[in-house]
Amino acid sequence: MIRVGIAGATGYTGVELIRLLVDHPEVEITALTSQQYAGQKIQNVFPSLAGRIDLACTPLSVESLSAVADVVFTALPHQSAMEVIPDLLQSGLKVVDLSADYRLRDAAVYEQWYQPHTSPELLAEAVYGLPELYREAIAEARLIANPGCYPTSAALAMAPLLKNDLVDQASLVIDSKSGTSGAGRGAKTGSLFCEVNEGFKAYGVAGHRHTPEIEQTLSQVAGREMTVSFTPHLLPVNRGILSTCYAGLKQMMTTSSLLDLYREFYAGEFFVRVGDEGILPNVNNVRGSNFCDLGLVADPRTGRCIVIAAIDNLVKGAAGQAVQNFNIQAGLDETTALKSLAGFP
Amino acid sequence: MIRVGIAGATGYTGVELIRLLVDHPEVEITALTSQQYAGQKIQNVFPSLAGRIDLACTPLSVESLSAVADVVFTALPHQSAMEVIPDLLQSGLKVVDLSADYRLRDAAVYEQWYQPHTSPELLAEAVYGLPELYREAIAEARLIANPGCYPTSAALAMAPLLKNDLVDQASLVIDSKSGTSGAGRGAKTGSLFCEVNEGFKAYGVAGHRHTPEIEQTLSQVAGREMTVSFTPHLLPVNRGILSTCYAGLKQMMTTSSLLDLYREFYAGEFFVRVGDEGILPNVNNVRGSNFCDLGLVADPRTGRCIVIAAIDNLVKGAAGQAVQNFNIQAGLDETTALKSLAGFP
Amino acid sequence: MIRVGIAGATGYTGVELIRLLVDHPEVEITALTSQQYAGQKIQNVFPSLAGRIDLACTPLSVESLSAVADVVFTALPHQSAMEVIPDLLQSGLKVVDLSADYRLRDAAVYEQWYQPHTSPELLAEAVYGLPELYREAIAEARLIANPGCYPTSAALAMAPLLKNDLVDQASLVIDSKSGTSGAGRGAKTGSLFCEVNEGFKAYGVAGHRHTPEIEQTLSQVAGREMTVSFTPHLLPVNRGILSTCYAGLKQMMTTSSLLDLYREFYAGEFFVRVGDEGILPNVNNVRGSNFCDLGLVADPRTGRCIVIAAIDNLVKGAAGQAVQNFNIQAGLDETTALKSLAGFP
Amino acid sequence: MIRVGIAGATGYTGVELIRLLVDHPEVEITALTSQQYAGQKIQNVFPSLAGRIDLACTPLSVESLSAVADVVFTALPHQSAMEVIPDLLQSGLKVVDLSADYRLRDAAVYEQWYQPHTSPELLAEAVYGLPELYREAIAEARLIANPGCYPTSAALAMAPLLKNDLVDQASLVIDSKSGTSGAGRGAKTGSLFCEVNEGFKAYGVAGHRHTPEIEQTLSQVAGREMTVSFTPHLLPVNRGILSTCYAGLKQMMTTSSLLDLYREFYAGEFFVRVGDEGILPNVNNVRGSNFCDLGLVADPRTGRCIVIAAIDNLVKGAAGQAVQNFNIQAGLDETTALKSLAGFP
Repeated sequence: MIRVGIAGATGYTGVELIRLLVDHPEVEITALTSQQYAGQKIQNVFPSLAGRIDLACTPLSVESLSAVADVVFTALPHQSAMEVIPDLLQSGLKVVDLSADYRLRDAAVYEQWYQPHTSPELLAEAVYGLPELYREAIAEARLIANPGCYPTSAALAMAPLLKNDLVDQASLVIDSKSGTSGAGRGAKTGSLFCEVNEGFKAYGVAGHRHTPEIEQTLSQVAGREMTVSFTPHLLPVNRGILSTCYAGLKQMMTTSSLLDLYREFYAGEFFVRVGDEGILPNVNNVRGSNFCDLGLVADPRTGRCIVIAAIDNLVKGAAGQAVQNFNIQAGLDETTALKSLAGFP
Repeated sequence: MIRVGIAGATGYTGVELIRLLVDHPEVEITALTSQQYAGQKIQNVFPSLAGRIDLACTPLSVESLSAVADVVFTALPHQSAMEVIPDLLQSGLKVVDLSADYRLRDAAVYEQWYQPHTSPELLAEAVYGLPELYREAIAEARLIANPGCYPTSAALAMAPLLKNDLVDQASLVIDSKSGTSGAGRGAKTGSLFCEVNEGFKAYGVAGHRHTPEIEQTLSQVAGREMTVSFTPHLLPVNRGILSTCYAGLKQMMTTSSLLDLYREFYAGEFFVRVGDEGILPNVNNVRGSNFCDLGLVADPRTGRCIVIAAIDNLVKGAAGQAVQNFNIQAGLDETTALKSLAGFP
Repeated sequence: MIRVGIAGATGYTGVELIRLLVDHPEVEITALTSQQYAGQKIQNVFPSLAGRIDLACTPLSVESLSAVADVVFTALPHQSAMEVIPDLLQSGLKVVDLSADYRLRDAAVYEQWYQPHTSPELLAEAVYGLPELYREAIAEARLIANPGCYPTSAALAMAPLLKNDLVDQASLVIDSKSGTSGAGRGAKTGSLFCEVNEGFKAYGVAGHRHTPEIEQTLSQVAGREMTVSFTPHLLPVNRGILSTCYAGLKQMMTTSSLLDLYREFYAGEFFVRVGDEGILPNVNNVRGSNFCDLGLVADPRTGRCIVIAAIDNLVKGAAGQAVQNFNIQAGLDETTALKSLAGFP
Repeated sequence: MIRVGIAGATGYTGVELIRLLVDHPEVEITALTSQQYAGQKIQNVFPSLAGRIDLACTPLSVESLSAVADVVFTALPHQSAMEVIPDLLQSGLKVVDLSADYRLRDAAVYEQWYQPHTSPELLAEAVYGLPELYREAIAEARLIANPGCYPTSAALAMAPLLKNDLVDQASLVIDSKSGTSGAGRGAKTGSLFCEVNEGFKAYGVAGHRHTPEIEQTLSQVAGREMTVSFTPHLLPVNRGILSTCYAGLKQMMTTSSLLDLYREFYAGEFFVRVGDEGILPNVNNVRGSNFCDLGLVADPRTGRCIVIAAIDNLVKGAAGQAVQNFNIQAGLDETTALKSLAGFP
């Protein structure tokens, strides 16, 4: 059994990690940290967990974690994560970090979009945890930077086109819509039920922090600098991201041939499902699961290919992908504890 | 491996059975019947299932089912179920019936609330599949009548009080609220998104067909005739039933002593979770899971005990309980394929 | 033109008062107070208001209000309201108070459910603003205590039965469900979208503060002490209350004769709509409007009458009823600015 | 009083027309036609209307309509509309048509995206009813083709940029999201609550029928042929369209200067509200109202301007704009019966 600690267990990503890991046959959860709920039983904080776990939250302490855990999932806000991760590594723990702190290769880019970085020396070591693109490096990693939710959807949607050099340089528009759990569990007016329900809006237009992360991955895959227009929106659903991606094609192709190309690119990938022609993704088909559903349409009228990706932002966009990375890192079957289907409806 | 067929696989109960059974280590799904989608791949009807099952729907045929299956789950409308179940049994199959056709002991009562019964002789044999109350009989059953969703919540909420003879005879009021999946997948105006969303209403007031089923179980447990006021309401959520039950107490007790009594009654029951004092059920803590959450408050001002039960109407209220019954019938661990927690949020 | 100030303009009740009053032909809104948003334009706080009002929020000051207003609507939390209302009255202003502070006749009851009362001498003067029951007194009032949302629904649902002495003394059960705007605009974890959406729960069971207010009105109408079981629930909709009321009848009557009795009781009342037999209320038929929809079913099996009331908690349950009271107090047509229908869907 | 008939009164657009027109001081509703509900009182079909109208639905008959009405709003499906409109005009009635049948100037384009046109001779006469662009022609029109919901949002979002020739020819991407009422009131599986709620998907990708309508208006405004990528999505809300529009700018401008340009373009337009810098539209600020909210951000990184428009698809996108057109046609104040604000929340 691998002993696992979760730092930041009482946010939406934390509770989702617990849900997935209690069903993991090789994992024992040994520590749950929480600033706000320290001392409280996790099953009283989240009654959904009752019957499967009986563990009290503790304050975050590197010493305590290293005493009981082999691996730590850090589900902390950015900046808080990098305050503790160097020490966790120092203590001999492996870390799967769900924050943004180690995702960007370039400290300067990080500092431009976030704030000063206090352990830039780890950026070179950290492996970007998108298994479908970087599986081999993940297997060797001590520190895995689990991708952001929007970037996961964008990268999986665009990788086959970019890898095959089919896209006009400056043509990319990524219009994404996320469920409200993506805004976290902080008590903010803007996240109140009555403010979100029956509403819909864009936010962070032309300035969202996931933009450089998206561009970093797309550029790596394309082998050249890619710039994208990325616009996130707030959906009145709990979970789910749908990204509608517009790519100008260097030369027109049919929907059918593009689908072939996608199926080939993702052959053998359990978690990427490419829909048949005419079947487009819906976030309710992936809710609660680790799947990424892809669909596309070529539009000869405009010379664009429209690719649509759906994931659950808390699973493939966060906790599920973290467990997938953990499995790879641990040498386990990558799909362990992750095969469950979405409950529809 | 036990070979399983699902008759009526393309309703909401059908797809939920598939979701649960693809994760069942002792089950092979061998047949899915559907009138409307015969000939189509189930994963194109429900893209949520893609990657885990690859099976086409077939028309319902007793002959075909008996050729490939050991057990059949019938997820058909009432009346349609009893048209086929006698023949399924005749062919040597075991049946878990999710319709209402074999739930009522008394054919006269059935006929008063539904329509003429065409196989009343099976009513004596059929076992009412509420494991927490009738586990032994279920283990021996050839035909299991899987309980209705509302009756499951009402029976689990009231059983401890009634078994201990604490309730005033004519005092029971059961005010239930169900998610919209309970209305089924039929294309009716009243089930349209815009009619249900941001709405809330009662329906079937003083006349809902689950009333005699509730009264049958409560009377059996109480050992005397119980009559209840039962009012269902339509909730703008996909899944979940919350039943708020009002019982006049013969003599007042404290919340704490009543909770003790409930914990004792349900000791050892994996799927019934009795909340601590002050913790009351919420449907979002059971969504997608087979748990029934119970909470209660004693009210000395009015002499009533208010008991609240929450289940997922498609799981503990239908498909999950059916699998639980199947496990018992098959001699398997009752919790097989049913231990997953709700995804919160 | 009557000059109107709104104290507490940036809660959900405040913004609803503004919405209704900008369409009022006899009203000029001259002051909007807000602690949190003082100095900000109200149309930037609530962009829904843009184009119809251009006014900055100010800190609450009795002096300022009395300089510019004839009437003040106080949409403040309980306790905050009674800190300012005596001074407002002293300054010669009329007050429609939407808080709970002056609703209960008996200071001792208030103090039992809330906290010490600092101006109990005003309780005798304050008029409970339920126009369908107390219209004459409202017309003369200087201080109107606008009813709570749940109590409005319960009183209108039960008044005809109680006035006609048809109800068994201890039989009343009122099971109410409210949209989330009833929880206010405070940034609390429990009001977050992801906590409420797809959820449903009871709260304040056997202890909600609206209980004594309900009992006060029902007792007055009945002419004897009425005790009720009242259970509120949180609905995942923005607006709307549906109260399902169970009353044991002294002697059984038909649905049809009870409906006649209700229609007679509410004859001439513009805002109370009694449905035909078979038509039951739905909150989406009253959303945004000042109507209270009533429906009922007599149940000879149990000897109960089930009465269902639907209102918009922010309109007939708060701001709309406040404007109705204001109209009466000002000698205007009671329906002024209140005739609009719900937008369905 | 102008006598008004509504053909197709029992769809979502029909009931919204009724809601708006019962508050119109110059209108008397004299006829409501409905195939499905002929003979039934409209207030029993839509209990939301009770108390304000008492009228039975009748079958559609040109003779009957011309006997009682001066103007007819046709809220019929496309193709059904053109079966009756020539006769309505022949009878001397004025028509505001909410279908797609007379929106496209070019019969060949209509036939390519819809089906054969049976009265192409009327296309030259029909006036496209977007008042902010074509007010003068509307005032003279006998037949007004009320714009589609998506095209209204796209045209108002893009007109200032195109009129000022700021946009790169082939750069337009319009990513739109619509509430479910846009799918109509037909009982289709895809519109069921459980299929839509907690879901989100694109549909009609690269093939939606509103594409040629959008391109027609944008081309007229631009004075050259404009081609757009248009992708509609289905939002789990009742009402509202948000269109996120991406335009490559011929030369970069600041957000502030672009906002000035928009404010100038829409100066004096009551129903178009241009947000201050940093304030972006949300569908919940326009719900139930006839406003179109606009916001924008210039993105120097990509050379694009992102313009966002929010309308209520049933009001400014259908019934409200129809009443606005009717007001203009009738020589009334354009805002009559249309000034109400959105109820937030």
